[in-house]
Amino acid sequence: MRKPAGRGLFITFEGGEGAGKSTQAARCAGYLAERGHEVVATREPGGTPTAERLREILLDGAVALDPLEQVLVLYAARHNHVTGVIRPAIERGAIVVCDRFSDSTRAYQGAAGGVDAAAIDAVERLALGGFGPDLTLVLDAPVETGFARVRDRGGAADRFEGQENAFHRRLRQGFLDIAAADPERCRVIDATGGPDAVWQSVRAALDAVLEA
Amino acid sequence: MRKPAGRGLFITFEGGEGAGKSTQAARCAGYLAERGHEVVATREPGGTPTAERLREILLDGAVALDPLEQVLVLYAARHNHVTGVIRPAIERGAIVVCDRFSDSTRAYQGAAGGVDAAAIDAVERLALGGFGPDLTLVLDAPVETGFARVRDRGGAADRFEGQENAFHRRLRQGFLDIAAADPERCRVIDATGGPDAVWQSVRAALDAVLEA
Ligand SMILES: Nc1ncnc2c1ncn2[C@@H]1O[C@H](COP(=O)(O)OP(=O)(O)O)[C@@H](O)[C@H]1O
Ligand SMILES: Nc1ncnc2c1ncn2[C@@H]1O[C@H](COP(=O)(O)OP(=O)(O)O)[C@@H](O)[C@H]1O
Ligand SMILES: [Mg+2]
Ligand SMILES: [Mg+2]
Repeated sequence: MRKPAGRGLFITFEGGEGAGKSTQAARCAGYLAERGHEVVATREPGGTPTAERLREILLDGAVALDPLEQVLVLYAARHNHVTGVIRPAIERGAIVVCDRFSDSTRAYQGAAGGVDAAAIDAVERLALGGFGPDLTLVLDAPVETGFARVRDRGGAADRFEGQENAFHRRLRQGFLDIAAADPERCRVIDATGGPDAVWQSVRAALDAVLEA
Repeated sequence: MRKPAGRGLFITFEGGEGAGKSTQAARCAGYLAERGHEVVATREPGGTPTAERLREILLDGAVALDPLEQVLVLYAARHNHVTGVIRPAIERGAIVVCDRFSDSTRAYQGAAGGVDAAAIDAVERLALGGFGPDLTLVLDAPVETGFARVRDRGGAADRFEGQENAFHRRLRQGFLDIAAADPERCRVIDATGGPDAVWQSVRAALDAVLEA
């Protein structure tokens, strides 16, 4: 993709648990800010006070929310985030760097969770119209690599970290399928190396877009 | 409508603030239980621990949730309520008496809140398929009558009680339009009289269905 003239840019980081999304999204935001861009760094689920309240419920494994219910709550939160933060930032020319977005719903609740892609499409159309990222960096690593990083990171497992291995394998494949279906927007980044090695790949993808 | 053989019955109470829904739903539940039915009395938004958590967010006027976001969260809660409580009860032959259901979404977020009926239809289809009440009692009273009762009831105003008069007038008309469009299912009950007078009308509507 190319940076559209006259407005900002919407960049998302996607991938499974421990792929390094939060690490690379933070580096990306810093890098772009250093280059003089207005950068809005945000995350999903969340990004507004309302969406963060919904995030608590979504990630709390003790709350019984099935995947379809998660989709509905996720898109309520996403609509709030897009209208309140993301779209206004892009319209004033900022670069928005978001840690997870719609592709996570398609991978977690869809490919891994069993909700029909058509159902997610229908909810997305209502909530976002055609709005979505200009560039998506899909950080890809074996499930075991991500698990080991999350274990080292510590903290209690949330609803999704607690899922069995087969779920996480469907999830990884889900992200790869999304990227394959939308190569204009998505770049798959090998995320098995150390943070600096991954950052070199991420930066190359960013530079290609910014200089296009 | 007639009580279908071999399964229970799903009865909902609808109407604006202070129409007397909670009062009449409780009487209805007691009356049916006395007559030997298994009765499940429940309410929306809510009715399950998960849906009650979403209710807190929905009714909290300090949480910025626009009407479309409310629709998505309401149907997440409703799906949870239907699959966890309402449908199992009906399948074992119980009568479910629910204080508000989908018609409230169509009236509050739709007619009064401005969300397209087609958008609500789309979300409902995903969340409920064709599932809905067998009998709906729409308690109808002038906005001012309901307001006066709510004032006397006391307590802090929630998101909807705090809306301006024009909202509540659109709401009342919204409920009347729903009832007019679905006369097989809906009975409009004049709710301007005292609790006993309203109960006589509600009981007559129930008896007509139970004895049919
Ligand atoms: N490329 C990497 N190699 C090794 N460890 C990493 C790498 N990237 C991030 N980490 C560490 O792994 C953990 C998970 O990274 P994080 O960025 O939080 O992943 P995600 O946001 O995708 O779940 C963190 O403790 C982080 O410091
Ligand atoms: N028919 C009625 N006439 C006068 N007061 C009523 C009547 N029905 C209910 N109330 C009182 O009005 C208030 C609102 O009634 P409630 O059943 O809570 O209404 P809703 O659930 O429709 O908001 C309560 O304090 C209730 O005791
Ligand atoms: Mg992260
Ligand atoms: Mg009530």
